Amino acid sequence: MNMMLLAPIGSVLALCFAGYLAYSVTRKSEGTDQMKKIADAIRQGANAYLKRQYSGVAIFFIVMMVILAALAIAGFLTPFVPFAFLTGGFFSGLSGFLGMKIATAANARTANAARESLNSGLRVAFNSGAVMGLVVVGLGLLDLSIWYFFLDWFYRDLDPAQRIQNITSAMLTFGMGASSMALFARVGGGIFTKAADVGADLVGKVEAGIPEDDPRNPAVIADNVGDNVGDVAGMGADLYESYVGSIVSTCALAVAAGLGVNGVTIPMVMAAIGVIASIIGTFFVRSGEKAEQKTLLRALRTGVYISSVLIFVAAYFLVRNILPNNMGVFWAIVSGLVAGNLIGFVTEYFTSDTYNPTRKLAKTSLTGPATIIIGGLSLGMLSTAIPVIIVGAAVAASFFLAGGASNFNLGLYGVGISAVGMLSTLGITLATDAYGPVADNAGGIAEMSHLPPEVRQRTDALDSLGNTTAATGKGFAIGSAALTALALIAAYTDEVKLINPNFVFNLDLVNPPVLIGLFVGGMLPFLFASLTMEAVGRAAQQIVVEVRRQFKEIVGLMEGNAQPDYASCVDICTRAAQKEMLTPALVAIIAPILVGLLLGVNGVAGMLAGATVSGFILAIMMANSGGSWDNAKKYIEAGNFGGKGSDPHKAAVVGDTVGDPFKDTSGPSINILIKLLSMVSIVFASFIMSNTLMK
Amino acid sequence: MNMMLLAPIGSVLALCFAGYLAYSVTRKSEGTDQMKKIADAIRQGANAYLKRQYSGVAIFFIVMMVILAALAIAGFLTPFVPFAFLTGGFFSGLSGFLGMKIATAANARTANAARESLNSGLRVAFNSGAVMGLVVVGLGLLDLSIWYFFLDWFYRDLDPAQRIQNITSAMLTFGMGASSMALFARVGGGIFTKAADVGADLVGKVEAGIPEDDPRNPAVIADNVGDNVGDVAGMGADLYESYVGSIVSTCALAVAAGLGVNGVTIPMVMAAIGVIASIIGTFFVRSGEKAEQKTLLRALRTGVYISSVLIFVAAYFLVRNILPNNMGVFWAIVSGLVAGNLIGFVTEYFTSDTYNPTRKLAKTSLTGPATIIIGGLSLGMLSTAIPVIIVGAAVAASFFLAGGASNFNLGLYGVGISAVGMLSTLGITLATDAYGPVADNAGGIAEMSHLPPEVRQRTDALDSLGNTTAATGKGFAIGSAALTALALIAAYTDEVKLINPNFVFNLDLVNPPVLIGLFVGGMLPFLFASLTMEAVGRAAQQIVVEVRRQFKEIVGLMEGNAQPDYASCVDICTRAAQKEMLTPALVAIIAPILVGLLLGVNGVAGMLAGATVSGFILAIMMANSGGSWDNAKKYIEAGNFGGKGSDPHKAAVVGDTVGDPFKDTSGPSINILIKLLSMVSIVFASFIMSNTLMK
Repeated sequence: MNMMLLAPIGSVLALCFAGYLAYSVTRKSEGTDQMKKIADAIRQGANAYLKRQYSGVAIFFIVMMVILAALAIAGFLTPFVPFAFLTGGFFSGLSGFLGMKIATAANARTANAARESLNSGLRVAFNSGAVMGLVVVGLGLLDLSIWYFFLDWFYRDLDPAQRIQNITSAMLTFGMGASSMALFARVGGGIFTKAADVGADLVGKVEAGIPEDDPRNPAVIADNVGDNVGDVAGMGADLYESYVGSIVSTCALAVAAGLGVNGVTIPMVMAAIGVIASIIGTFFVRSGEKAEQKTLLRALRTGVYISSVLIFVAAYFLVRNILPNNMGVFWAIVSGLVAGNLIGFVTEYFTSDTYNPTRKLAKTSLTGPATIIIGGLSLGMLSTAIPVIIVGAAVAASFFLAGGASNFNLGLYGVGISAVGMLSTLGITLATDAYGPVADNAGGIAEMSHLPPEVRQRTDALDSLGNTTAATGKGFAIGSAALTALALIAAYTDEVKLINPNFVFNLDLVNPPVLIGLFVGGMLPFLFASLTMEAVGRAAQQIVVEVRRQFKEIVGLMEGNAQPDYASCVDICTRAAQKEMLTPALVAIIAPILVGLLLGVNGVAGMLAGATVSGFILAIMMANSGGSWDNAKKYIEAGNFGGKGSDPHKAAVVGDTVGDPFKDTSGPSINILIKLLSMVSIVFASFIMSNTLMK
Repeated sequence: MNMMLLAPIGSVLALCFAGYLAYSVTRKSEGTDQMKKIADAIRQGANAYLKRQYSGVAIFFIVMMVILAALAIAGFLTPFVPFAFLTGGFFSGLSGFLGMKIATAANARTANAARESLNSGLRVAFNSGAVMGLVVVGLGLLDLSIWYFFLDWFYRDLDPAQRIQNITSAMLTFGMGASSMALFARVGGGIFTKAADVGADLVGKVEAGIPEDDPRNPAVIADNVGDNVGDVAGMGADLYESYVGSIVSTCALAVAAGLGVNGVTIPMVMAAIGVIASIIGTFFVRSGEKAEQKTLLRALRTGVYISSVLIFVAAYFLVRNILPNNMGVFWAIVSGLVAGNLIGFVTEYFTSDTYNPTRKLAKTSLTGPATIIIGGLSLGMLSTAIPVIIVGAAVAASFFLAGGASNFNLGLYGVGISAVGMLSTLGITLATDAYGPVADNAGGIAEMSHLPPEVRQRTDALDSLGNTTAATGKGFAIGSAALTALALIAAYTDEVKLINPNFVFNLDLVNPPVLIGLFVGGMLPFLFASLTMEAVGRAAQQIVVEVRRQFKEIVGLMEGNAQPDYASCVDICTRAAQKEMLTPALVAIIAPILVGLLLGVNGVAGMLAGATVSGFILAIMMANSGGSWDNAKKYIEAGNFGGKGSDPHKAAVVGDTVGDPFKDTSGPSINILIKLLSMVSIVFASFIMSNTLMK
């Protein structure tokens, strides 16, 4: 019980340190008036978007609250669920909001600091990323702590075993709020950012022949806003959900494994340890003036590695103290830590232009756009093999190390705790990831404010590194999602057995409901990816029409004598994202209910497994194809195969444009999809069991 | 026993009628000297390719025979397996060979008949397709009959229950030979045809600006040869494998379901009924002179529908006669028949330019190649949803209709027999499918021989219809593959229980070996698709280099005063296909053995399920994306959105080029992959059970 207090303490520490970092960032100057003006426009656009998004999502949350309340009244759910749903959604949204606030405050300040030196720029950008990372883990841990202590007090009259079971069962359901919010944030933000990006490029770069980030392009501010609402706010909500999901599912598995409160303490305290280790790690991120990608990457990596080592050591003592007879749990944590880093490496290998695959992809541009598309798709497909083997090995290792051979449930707990281990470094890995969009924005501001070329060079160095860390971060998010989703499937079956102890599962692969569930689940990520890609396409078309209109109607725009109407593009993206995010989200919520009603809980379990498998593979493929196309284009722009403006470059731009929705809209939403499916299944389990066709 | 004689009778009927049709085709004139010369060049190229391919495959078969013989000697297999492996491969290869023989004999004759009238052209092309369809079903049924009667004689001293069990168990393993041969034929042929096609287009159409099928293009003959070795010989071997696989797996399931020899008789006789119905159906395929696609399609469909109705009626009496107490088996057959047709319709809806999806895709070409690529991928992904639901419904229907609720194994038998039902129309559906490449070749010959424009118009009408029937045929092949693969997974588990009756499966989804198997299996189709696409890319590059060289070095080629060296392009494709088909094939054979050694038979079952689910979805996506890109291009060429030569057309050509390996190499090979994985698993089951890490 004493140990458990570390969770709220860690949470408060994270939030305080984030506050301190935020204060230190905002103390810096935003630079020239022109810079302030641009930063302000981006801020306004981002705020307007989030305001609109959150009002739209609020309606969804109210509707869901009513449904959940009705289910609670009908006795299918405990009365806490509607409120837990709400807090999960609220804190997830708050994480994204605060992360975006600091990012839009830091972009001009990063550009301004980069006028001084590379290291100053890095510090500002990285500190704003760290704010985001710490806010996510801090709020996550806060929400979990509040609920844990409240429920512990509420169930104080039950015996310890029953008490912990009731606590974890209620906490499990609250992941649904976080997942729903995350899905809206990722999908909506992803549609916004890529509609603006693709639309701006199609007319600006391709038709009008003006460079990227040119202030004459009416969609340029929308593009910058998109980086903030998609890559920052969306990612924050996403990883909040992953973080909380991995912890609550592991807590639920702890009870089935017979570990009781000890099994719950470990993931909660692991999270607190991760917070402290991340804070320490941030002090080690600094760079010299030499703007080499290697040096910069080393600067960021040093922070992550130091945190990882601290976590390794602390986890050892934690497990030795709490579960001295099962040090295998420690090794399960380690297997997650290692697997996360390995997947990050593989992602980097396939997407960075310092390695062979992306260089070879760049070369296929010599024979035109068709060959670079085939090459990129094929690279993405190939790149799924090793992550699948890594996740498979992590599952096997964590299951058997935790003692799965003699106690099956203990093995499943091992899988859950390995996901917690993987995500324990989240505070700092998210910092290295979230700093990318800030640097990207800083580059845009430097360009639009006509700062001297060495400033743009510095922000470019920071930005280019951001692409690599973003790819690594995505690999990490996907890897943890796979492990968490597996833990959630196991937690789902536990939940069903809690609801009806007499229920006998038949999860045999050849049982038709399971098999059909597998097929339907396997198809869902494809359907979801299709819907989100179509949405980007439709929204981008609207931007194309608007930008063309402004080029034609605003006199003197191309000559630089008149201002484009930036706000109209922001507005179009905002409305389009709001409208388009609904259908994919409904698919994720309705599918498990429909499958449950038709095929029963066996079918639902099959669906979850199918979606996890095909979603994991498709998400990796899309992220890596997209990342590699992006970097292949950059590699050509660096002067290879003809350089900027050559035919191979044009072919590479086609690849990059196809990759945009792959890597920033559809791919990263799939993580959330597979977890939201599980969460909805868990929340509706009791209802499904009473109303299904197949009992 | 008497009924069973229908199988060899049907087989002989099919082969005799095929012989008669072949004779009637070859009696026609090949036309002018020029036409004969071109047809001869295509024939020589195709023969040279098959000769080389079969010699290469022979080495593989010898190696596998040695391995299987060693396993038989070690007691892991019955002594028949190596020979059954050989006959399966031999007949599968023979199907492809004979189909190709008649296709290369019919192409010039079709062009020549089209000089007379559309109906004459249709008759020649369709009759050659019918030869192929009937040869496939005839040889399949022949091979099955020989083995059945031989084994029945061999095990004559056993009691009936034991006898039928030994027969079906031995017959099951012989699918491996057919599947291996099919994989080589599909992958090798697919690489050949798309390397030639892509290579010819990249230099001829794009660089040199000469039209398709222009005799000055050195790769034009290779392109025509490719249609024969890929779309004819490859498809023949493929569907031979599907046909035989569905029957042997159903026979194996019959024993577990306790149906004994009656359960074996039904699929064998169903096949014989299908043969007779197909023969009758061919008489109804004829057209008037109006070259409308609708009329032509109706002509072909009439044949298929008449056959389907005959099968429906005959199946009813067959089941009523043999299993009077279980008419549900009849309805399981019907569910397969219906599902096959529905999947065909969905394929047509998504890929034909008479419907909305492909027209909308064509419109995305207005904003360039990137948007048409995003649109096509997204269309393909979306198009997976309904087929998944259809297959799910067919599985549920056939399982429960056959009595799965009270007898699980009877339900699985229902799933198997529904696949047989789906494939029972194969004789005639394959005819409508195989006629496409013949018409395509005929058009090329008409073009190269400078026949009058109305001839080309007629062959174009035939060819364009061929695209639709090819897409329908692929949907059919994929749908039957899903059902067959499920039957094979069930047959695999039966086989394991036969080997060791004490073995207890734990196919629970959350059992780690199963779960890891699911992940690995889910990844395999992606890996396989990546390898085959890369192979096409590499081979196409070689063609590009060679065509460029000839354009540069052969004086007077572009002016039409000199002949290009067609043979060198054929030779390059042949060598490349031989070399490149090995790695993907080895993946299919080694993966189940490796997974078995590491994860045991539970892991293997998981892998098979994962590969079936993700393979089915990926195959549909690739086939439909590719088909839709192809037809979107044709739609633009017909004068929409700017027509031939416009920017939208150029964008559509990019889409079509990306779609080429999708729809003709990777996509259609995935069917075979998932069945070969099952076959290898079954053959090696005994070996795996003795040597696995996870018992």
